[in-house]
Amino acid sequence: METINIALTVVVLTSLSVVSGVILVWYFVILPDVTSEVARGGRPNIIIILAADVGYADFQAYGHPTQEWTAVDRMVMEGIKFTNLHSPSSICSPSRAAILTGRYPIRTGVFGKGLAFAPSSSGGLRHDETTIAEVLRHGGYITGMNGKWHLGINEKSATDGVYLPHRYGFDYVGTTLPHSQMWACDPKKYTIPQMKGCFLYHNDTIVEQPINLNTLTGRLVNETKAFIRENKDQPFFFLLSFPQTHSAVFASTAFLGKSKRGIYGDAINEMGWGIGEVLEYLIELGIEKDTLVVFLSDQGPLKDGCGNGGSTGFFRGGKTTTWEGGIRVPAVAWWPGTIPQKIVCDSLLSTMDLFPTIIKFASLLNSTTFKQLSIDGKDISGILKGENSKSPHEVLFYYYGDLLTAARYDRYKIHYRTMSLMKDVMDGLKEDRCYYGSFSMLQQLFGFQNRGTEHDPPLIFDLDADPEELVSLDTTNQELENLLETVEDLLQSHKLSIVSVKSEVDKPHMKQLYPCCNPPTCICNYNDKIMK
Amino acid sequence: METINIALTVVVLTSLSVVSGVILVWYFVILPDVTSEVARGGRPNIIIILAADVGYADFQAYGHPTQEWTAVDRMVMEGIKFTNLHSPSSICSPSRAAILTGRYPIRTGVFGKGLAFAPSSSGGLRHDETTIAEVLRHGGYITGMNGKWHLGINEKSATDGVYLPHRYGFDYVGTTLPHSQMWACDPKKYTIPQMKGCFLYHNDTIVEQPINLNTLTGRLVNETKAFIRENKDQPFFFLLSFPQTHSAVFASTAFLGKSKRGIYGDAINEMGWGIGEVLEYLIELGIEKDTLVVFLSDQGPLKDGCGNGGSTGFFRGGKTTTWEGGIRVPAVAWWPGTIPQKIVCDSLLSTMDLFPTIIKFASLLNSTTFKQLSIDGKDISGILKGENSKSPHEVLFYYYGDLLTAARYDRYKIHYRTMSLMKDVMDGLKEDRCYYGSFSMLQQLFGFQNRGTEHDPPLIFDLDADPEELVSLDTTNQELENLLETVEDLLQSHKLSIVSVKSEVDKPHMKQLYPCCNPPTCICNYNDKIMK
Repeated sequence: METINIALTVVVLTSLSVVSGVILVWYFVILPDVTSEVARGGRPNIIIILAADVGYADFQAYGHPTQEWTAVDRMVMEGIKFTNLHSPSSICSPSRAAILTGRYPIRTGVFGKGLAFAPSSSGGLRHDETTIAEVLRHGGYITGMNGKWHLGINEKSATDGVYLPHRYGFDYVGTTLPHSQMWACDPKKYTIPQMKGCFLYHNDTIVEQPINLNTLTGRLVNETKAFIRENKDQPFFFLLSFPQTHSAVFASTAFLGKSKRGIYGDAINEMGWGIGEVLEYLIELGIEKDTLVVFLSDQGPLKDGCGNGGSTGFFRGGKTTTWEGGIRVPAVAWWPGTIPQKIVCDSLLSTMDLFPTIIKFASLLNSTTFKQLSIDGKDISGILKGENSKSPHEVLFYYYGDLLTAARYDRYKIHYRTMSLMKDVMDGLKEDRCYYGSFSMLQQLFGFQNRGTEHDPPLIFDLDADPEELVSLDTTNQELENLLETVEDLLQSHKLSIVSVKSEVDKPHMKQLYPCCNPPTCICNYNDKIMK
Repeated sequence: METINIALTVVVLTSLSVVSGVILVWYFVILPDVTSEVARGGRPNIIIILAADVGYADFQAYGHPTQEWTAVDRMVMEGIKFTNLHSPSSICSPSRAAILTGRYPIRTGVFGKGLAFAPSSSGGLRHDETTIAEVLRHGGYITGMNGKWHLGINEKSATDGVYLPHRYGFDYVGTTLPHSQMWACDPKKYTIPQMKGCFLYHNDTIVEQPINLNTLTGRLVNETKAFIRENKDQPFFFLLSFPQTHSAVFASTAFLGKSKRGIYGDAINEMGWGIGEVLEYLIELGIEKDTLVVFLSDQGPLKDGCGNGGSTGFFRGGKTTTWEGGIRVPAVAWWPGTIPQKIVCDSLLSTMDLFPTIIKFASLLNSTTFKQLSIDGKDISGILKGENSKSPHEVLFYYYGDLLTAARYDRYKIHYRTMSLMKDVMDGLKEDRCYYGSFSMLQQLFGFQNRGTEHDPPLIFDLDADPEELVSLDTTNQELENLLETVEDLLQSHKLSIVSVKSEVDKPHMKQLYPCCNPPTCICNYNDKIMK
């Protein structure tokens, strides 16, 4: 039986004098309901730490030969490391929608020829979808998030914020990048930042443009700790979504130039520092045994032309492909006293499994909110506790935009269609190999016209024998023909189960939707005041 | 001061009646001098376990995602694991010559357009070279070897055995493959084995043709244990040179079909079994604290067209290239009580370092035999004992045949010339992708005409930032120009230091040199009798 305690939200309306102008700005901060008295009832706090475009092999514990030790490696030593866990997509917006809804992107509207939301997109995650934050909030959890979002911003005007995170079950929304920092605010490229793509929100309001990347990670970590401190006596859920490993990769001056690996290693090290801060703070507050912390990446790394992307180690491809390098992600779960130490789990799993698993730990599997959902992920709470290791998935499918590109069945990977690696496309373009900021270039890269190469019969790889996907199997033998038939049947069932929804990603892009804090300059910095 | 005790050799001449013929065959067995009384004087036994074409990432402890646990992983847990140790070549014969002499292949004659010795080669490792076995034997060690050799067989007749191992300081030579088993005896390809390339020796005499691959590993391991048992009371040196991971990969029926990875994993598992047997035997005899065991691969794996080769993990390329995948090898040292447990060493090292390091442990650095040598390897005994971790190498060079292809300086890899990966060449040939048995095909692959692609200016990669060698650095900045100049100076010194010797590999191939135990059928099995 569940106790439904809907946390009340307090809306604070404040007027601010603007540093660089005279405009009064209304902004909203949804504060956590610190007065609610929710019985923990053995239910853990949940922290999801989400990394952007971090590759399977970007940590020492995942085999990187030169990456420095980080708190992610510590989590591996003290928790369970997943080695066969996949995102259903290799693109940010669909991957993140899948984590938050537990559902294939094709069901949620977060797919399309445009692949991911842009700052001027008029679409976002559909409001008839139910996020993990909403189910937990309904079930008595206080919920919060900060960092990278990338599931939509505005629908009709530059300030309506229809698709911002607080509309999806988050009581508290701190410093947020509703999109990504993208190349637009890369300090290596632009001495005067390109403002349009480089904006920071606090809850529903744009507060900094361009983003001060030097202080960003510290702010995210401090906010997270503040949220934890204020809510430590009740079950809470927090999504800490680090942006720095997404292009353009950045690190603060305290970390810059310190990693053997260069800027990407600096970014990993700063994120690792932040994760360590959070773990240590849980221990300091004495709530580490009441808190499940999950670290994962949204998808594989961008193998860009200038080598500032992450590493996939054994695995072929990267972001923009559904080769293993694009979809197999580093993932670790840490919960001292409940998750045994140093387990390695090679069961076939999905990022979509997080949702039902967390709901199970929150004792909300039978809640009305959850029971009405149709979730593709599976409850793997037993695997996390080391009780079993059997994969709950007969099959997993992988998408590129609206295209179903690949399937995984047991040890076999079946490719119906293979997409180009961004690096390879860039090598062909012969333009500045490190930056893809222009829309026309992005169009070429992100496939408005790019439909990849279709394979009929599909390519089949045995991932146990050939994890690198180097040599496709001869499909003319009976065993593999039977296998393809089985997977074809599963694929047909999967397709039949999909209720058709319109692509949100392909909704019109409109110039007037571009967030701008201080027209026409689009330069501002309200953040100092807000953070007081 | 050293005590020089040259072990006497006993030559046993025996006549054998031939199973499938009537010819009498003379063969030689050089037995260990079990009567010599050599004071151990704190000097350890030395066992080198050499694998053929095993890739950097072919073990769990080196990151393979599906390889089963082996005794090599055990050695990693109980000893020191090297993560930055290189062969100066990615081809068998030069790599092995470098290990045995501590010298660059270009000095030893084991180089050439033909790359490696064939069964019909009239060349071999030059006799004016001094091997590690010779120095140790002169210094009072009893020495032995079995398994794969690949440093020459005959010079003028099919039975002169001028280049067989007992001529290079090995008191005892057991079951030996003077060449490799090669594709010629692949049971997957040939129901009636191709005899010419598929012969087994015992010391100087061919005893089995074709090779019974099913029993081979067991025989090598049993012989090794017998050698250890007979010599346990004096310092001994043994080279156990496993052949099964070289194409055509094989495993005995006890291991076949058991690995997740397929036949390559089966081969690794059987070799792992053998290594475990040796370690356990040392412990059983109570001499594990008196014995240094080093495991290493000769070079990177053959990435052949049918996927039966090994894995390089992070590293680009494989055998036939001097990308990291071709030259960075898995290497572990184990010596309970002297080498601390679980050390990982990422210092830049070379397979050539083994020779002086072992000579140091054997207290023979000041021996006359060793002092007259000009060795490229460095003594890394301090690194093995965990006393320091500094690389002794300012620079390392890499060769393909007679071509200097690349250099390593600090974190930088400089490619003067890049060679094709065998798999890529095969993909172009459109012939049977799994077998390259014909001479004309080998010619195309192994470069009689293949001189690769020259790079001027050279390609430079920062291996700390980009271990995958994906994005070469822009060489137009001053820092890298200086670097190239420094390396150029080192290269000139290196070239000046080379005393020109003729290529042994390119000496004539002659049909009459082909080993044949029982002309004209070349089928025999004397082994049962010999092993009695």
